[in-house]
Formats: sequence, structure tokens, C-alpha cells
Amino acid sequence: MNDFIFQNTTKIYFGKDQLGHLGEEVGACGTRVLLVYGGGSIKANGIYDDVMAELEHVGAEVFELSGVEPNPRHTTVNKGADICKREGIDMILAVGGGSTIDCAKAIAAATFYDGDSWDLVIGKAAVTNALPIVTVLTLAATGSEMDPVGVISNIETNEKYGIGHSLLQPKVSFLNPEYTFTVNAYQTASGSVDIMAHVFDMMYFTMKPKFDMIHRMATEVLSTVIQYAPLALKEPANYEARANLMWASSWALNGFLGRSGDFPTCHKIEHELSAYYDITHGHGLAIIIPHWLTYILTDETAPQIKKMGVDLFNTDESLNDIDGAKVAIAALSTFFFDTLGLDSKLSDLGISDKDFKAMARNAAKGGTLKGFIELTPEDIEKILIASL
Amino acid sequence: MNDFIFQNTTKIYFGKDQLGHLGEEVGACGTRVLLVYGGGSIKANGIYDDVMAELEHVGAEVFELSGVEPNPRHTTVNKGADICKREGIDMILAVGGGSTIDCAKAIAAATFYDGDSWDLVIGKAAVTNALPIVTVLTLAATGSEMDPVGVISNIETNEKYGIGHSLLQPKVSFLNPEYTFTVNAYQTASGSVDIMAHVFDMMYFTMKPKFDMIHRMATEVLSTVIQYAPLALKEPANYEARANLMWASSWALNGFLGRSGDFPTCHKIEHELSAYYDITHGHGLAIIIPHWLTYILTDETAPQIKKMGVDLFNTDESLNDIDGAKVAIAALSTFFFDTLGLDSKLSDLGISDKDFKAMARNAAKGGTLKGFIELTPEDIEKILIASL
Repeated sequence: MNDFIFQNTTKIYFGKDQLGHLGEEVGACGTRVLLVYGGGSIKANGIYDDVMAELEHVGAEVFELSGVEPNPRHTTVNKGADICKREGIDMILAVGGGSTIDCAKAIAAATFYDGDSWDLVIGKAAVTNALPIVTVLTLAATGSEMDPVGVISNIETNEKYGIGHSLLQPKVSFLNPEYTFTVNAYQTASGSVDIMAHVFDMMYFTMKPKFDMIHRMATEVLSTVIQYAPLALKEPANYEARANLMWASSWALNGFLGRSGDFPTCHKIEHELSAYYDITHGHGLAIIIPHWLTYILTDETAPQIKKMGVDLFNTDESLNDIDGAKVAIAALSTFFFDTLGLDSKLSDLGISDKDFKAMARNAAKGGTLKGFIELTPEDIEKILIASL
Repeated sequence: MNDFIFQNTTKIYFGKDQLGHLGEEVGACGTRVLLVYGGGSIKANGIYDDVMAELEHVGAEVFELSGVEPNPRHTTVNKGADICKREGIDMILAVGGGSTIDCAKAIAAATFYDGDSWDLVIGKAAVTNALPIVTVLTLAATGSEMDPVGVISNIETNEKYGIGHSLLQPKVSFLNPEYTFTVNAYQTASGSVDIMAHVFDMMYFTMKPKFDMIHRMATEVLSTVIQYAPLALKEPANYEARANLMWASSWALNGFLGRSGDFPTCHKIEHELSAYYDITHGHGLAIIIPHWLTYILTDETAPQIKKMGVDLFNTDESLNDIDGAKVAIAALSTFFFDTLGLDSKLSDLGISDKDFKAMARNAAKGGTLKGFIELTPEDIEKILIASL
């Protein structure tokens, strides 16, 4: 069992009737607000109006950055940082899913940097300060509402990396499950996979010693997604389903479940796919994960993979490790592709193998990817080819 | 499902090799330190020396308050606050179990109050400010290391109440499972019951709607105690057992598992027992809980009590609710009294019924106790009598 350091300072308002606290929380950070959001769905479903009414109550002066992309661009970050510098913004209010919140984090840091925000993403320059961030979450998926990392894409160079700093941890996040009632089936399914992938990548699959209580809890977060994602697909306005998915999304990445400290293998590989093809992150993960598990299946990894099947899908515990692991991977695939209804091949998303070599090299950052099992660029390329 | 607000800012250093961070964390709060501890076991087992060495590294000036009682007295709080005022103390370092940490919290607040600290405990005066608190935990039990409440006793008036304020949340807590290797069997058993009682009282047994994911996690915390407490009794220096108990103690009360908002029935009743008889809190709880569950057993409460048995002790799910609940209570009693080896009757602790009427009235604060099931003073008295 490894030592660990644990802290998560984000304050969460969870539930239907919490937005009345938005004004006071924004007001505590200042009066000049940059409101960041995406393609405008929050205008269609009324969330924008709810938020603006609260901001009006406290006399906030609101500036807007809309049109944040599903894989947010560093150019959009630059645009937001320019507004913050020019207008003397006090705080950023992100209303949306993980992309919007990630973009807000990068803007918060870039406001204190005199240059291209991409420098901060790739570590050419360090984060030294950041505007405070409050979020109103509209999608259960990335966990960005309760973690200190944002993922930003550079579309010119086909690069997608995370910018992380404790200063980027949201001060406050509002989680209203009703705000996800209008999330469509595809995004609900993809978001659910993203939640599961966080648990898998961050702590569930590892060769390092495990903390039993925390492993049990991680299993419950995964089981929660497996129980409630299908219900949310069937009944998009089921509060119970949306609430459990939403809180699971935060828990999968807020550090409560611990961190193995391994490289998050599937996330690293998928970031290459969405950097090149701008696909939905969770969908890319769904396709990669079963092929990754199949590729790394050995006597050493089999017990953990088999256990995943037993714990989450009630697969046959009496099988030997290798057979049990194969059955577990099949059960996971059935969940992703049949139950959640996601396409199962990269070619279904219009992806070809033409850039796989470069992607594999990038994913390993020139070396190897030290996750559950260490992968060379050649290994990664083979996983990508198997996923085609 | 109820709305909730969630935040826990305490930074946790968990593990064997973390005390090297103590100096920097104390140093961040100031240089004049009040070291608070109990009866001196930390001198016998070397923890005192470890801590002092770290404080020396950062040149801290250390003042000491030792001899904090197992049920800490307001008079001891007053003594600590006097030192803080007189010496211009910057921060409090509590090294011990829940009693020591609770005492430190009350001192932290009383330092900014010109009067008897008991006024703050009973709400006659409000907490307006507090010194920062860092803790080094030596007992897995109360969860005080990661919550904003301290429980203080007034031995003259036989009163025991909590003082709670967000300012009293420890800034940093060090959790080294090795520091609990020397905890004796009785305290290990009593502490384990306290952990379980927090989960039961705070959120597990309630008539309010439940959040499924969180209920599943609470069940895992309880199961963790049931698995590892017997192992810690058998092998006091088993790191795995002590680590899981220690983290379970924090989780049972840090708010991660939610709060029903009900009055914590068994805690309220037990506080009367330890206020009058100065007994070990967890032991009092162990005796009360099964009698409480038996007393409140009705068609309405039976399903939840039965479920406790099924989830935690693998009792027979096919029984009807009432029979299932009885079997569950029996299994819980077996765990407390046979597996953990605690005496099962209040009379074993030298308690008689002579003050039960007053205790029952105090527990309900003159009205009724609105917990899982509302209890009148007469109900509480009957539970106490059954526990004799």
C-alpha cells in the first residue's frame, strides 16, 4: 500500500434547488465575470437564463466567451485570456461540460501570462497565478468540475495535452442533475464511458499495491455507472439516474479514490485520436479500452481483469484467470457497444491507420507509456490497428 | 434524494513516510506552536520524539498542553486557551486521538473569546475566529482529524456537547497507520464501533431518500471495519488492517458519505452516558445500538435494518422484513460483543439506572430526538433500561 497525499477543496452544491447560491459564490470572487460556454445549448434549455438571473441579483458585470469547442482549442483560450486582461476580469464562470470547464481553467492561468497559452499547456512556461473559477456543470463525464486539470487541443499541430495546477481547482461547482436531462443518448453514453475510464486508468488497473477500502469504493462508482447509464438512456429525465451519473463523474477523478500514479494509458492513447480527428473523447475510450485489455492480457494482468468482470458484470468466478479475463473483456465490450449503443470500431468514426505511427510515438512522448503494463510505441500502434 | 452542500478542505498525508512534511505544514501556519496531547503514550511509543524532531527542523517554538482527558474537559480547554493568549501562539498541533483533536479545536476557538470556553460549547457565545489546527492521528475512531466538530465535557454539570464551525476544520492531518500499532485491543474495538456508529447515525439509517452511489460506498466503509477490526485485534501491527481502519475512520465522518440531517440518535444517547460516567464513547455506542434498533423495529424500519444484515453480515435475504431485521441485529451484536470482545451491558461498566430519566431528557434536549425514528425521553429511557 503506497503513501498518498489527499486534498480536494472544491465546494459542491448538489441538487435541484442550489443555483440560488450562485450569486453569493460569484460575488465572493469579484464583480467582473467572464461567462464561458459552448455551442449555445444552454440558451436552448434555459440554463443561460437561470445563470444570468442569479448574476444580475448580485450586480455582476458579465462578459461572454461562447463557442468553446468539444475539444477546446488553445486559440479559444487565448481569446478568453485577452478578454480577461483587457476587461480586468475578477473570476471565470464556466457553464457547460468538461470542455468548457477545461477551457476556463486554461484561460484562468493564461490571464497571468504574456504569451501564447499553448506555452502553459506544453510546460514551456509555468502557471504562476490564476483567476478563481466557479462552474455550473451540464454533462456527467470528465470530472473537471472537481479536479485541477484542463485538457486543451492544438489543432494546427494535432496535439492535445493537459494543463494542471492546484490553482486551477474550481472554487465552487454547481451540480444539478436536471441540467443533464437534455443531454442526448450519444453524449450520455460517451460521458459514462469517460467516467469508467477515469477509474480504470487512475487506480483500478495497476500493478502497485492497493488500498482495499478505496478499491471497494471505486468498484461501487463503476457499478453505479453500469446501473444508471442504461436507465438515463431509456429515461433521459430520470433524476435518480442523472444524479448518480453526475456524482459518479466527480468521484471518478476527484482523488477520493486515490491515484496509482501510473500514466493513464487509455487516456493518453485516446487524446491522440481526438487530437487528430476531433472525435468525442468517451467514444474513443470505449473503442480503445477492450482492445488494450486484450493486448496486455498475460498471466500477470489476468487476475485483475478477471476481477473486473466478476465485480462489475457478475461473470463466472470459477474460470481460470485467462479465461475469466477474456469473459470480463467481452462483458465490458457488450456494455459499451450493445447496452450503451456506441459504435465499436475506429473506422466507424472515419479514422484510418495513416497517422497511427505518429500517434503512437506521441502517446508515449518519444519513450514508453508506463501504465498498468509498460507499452512501447509499437505496442500502442498494434492496439490502434486492432481497434480499427 | 435530497440536495446537499459538500466541502472538505483538510489536506491528508497518509502513510508511513509522511511526517517529513510536518515541519513545512506547521511552518506555513506560524512559528509559535501549542502542542496538545493526552496521557503521555506518545512519549512511550516514540511519536513525541518524531514530532519534536520535525518541529525543531523548522525552528518552531513549542509550548505544551499535556494530559488531555479521554472525554476532554472544558477546564482543560480553558487552560490551553490561556497559554495561547499569553504566549501569542500561532497554531495548534494536536497529537493523539479524537479527544486530543477535539480539545485542540475548542482551544483554537476559545483563544479568541474572553470568557469560559463552555460558553462556546453550549452556544452562549459564537465562534468568531480560530487558530489553525494541524493533527497527527494516533487512533482510528472519531473522524475528528477530518471534520469541523469537537466534543467537550463539563464534568461539573454532567454535560457533553459538540462545538462545530468550519474554522475548526483541521488544515492538515497526518495519518500514519503505524502510529496505531500500539493501540490496545479495547481501544481498537471501541474505535471500530465508533466508526460504524458514525455511518449508521449520520446517513445509513434514515427515512429520507437515499443517494444510491453514496449508500453503496457507506456500506463499503462499514464492511471495511468488519473485515479489518478483527484482523487488527489479532495482529496489532498489521499495516493493512490499521491503514484500512484509519482511513475508514476519516471517511465515516468527513461528509463524503453525505448527511441525512437527522439527529445522530445513538451519539446523543451515548454522550449522556459518558458525560455521567466518563466511559469510552465507542463502547457505550456498542451497547446502545443493538437495543436502539430492537426498540425502533417496526414494519417501517425493518427493511433498512434487515438490509444492514444482508449487506454487512451476509444474513438470510429470504426472511421477511421483521425476522430479517432481528437476525441482522443479532449479527451486529455478535460482531460487537463476540468478535470485538466488548462487554455487552451498561451494568458491566458500573452504570446504574439512577440518572436515566435526566439523561433521557438531556439527550432529547427537553423535546424529542428526531433521528431515524423520533424518540421521546420516555423512549430513550426504555432503551437505556434495556441496555442495563
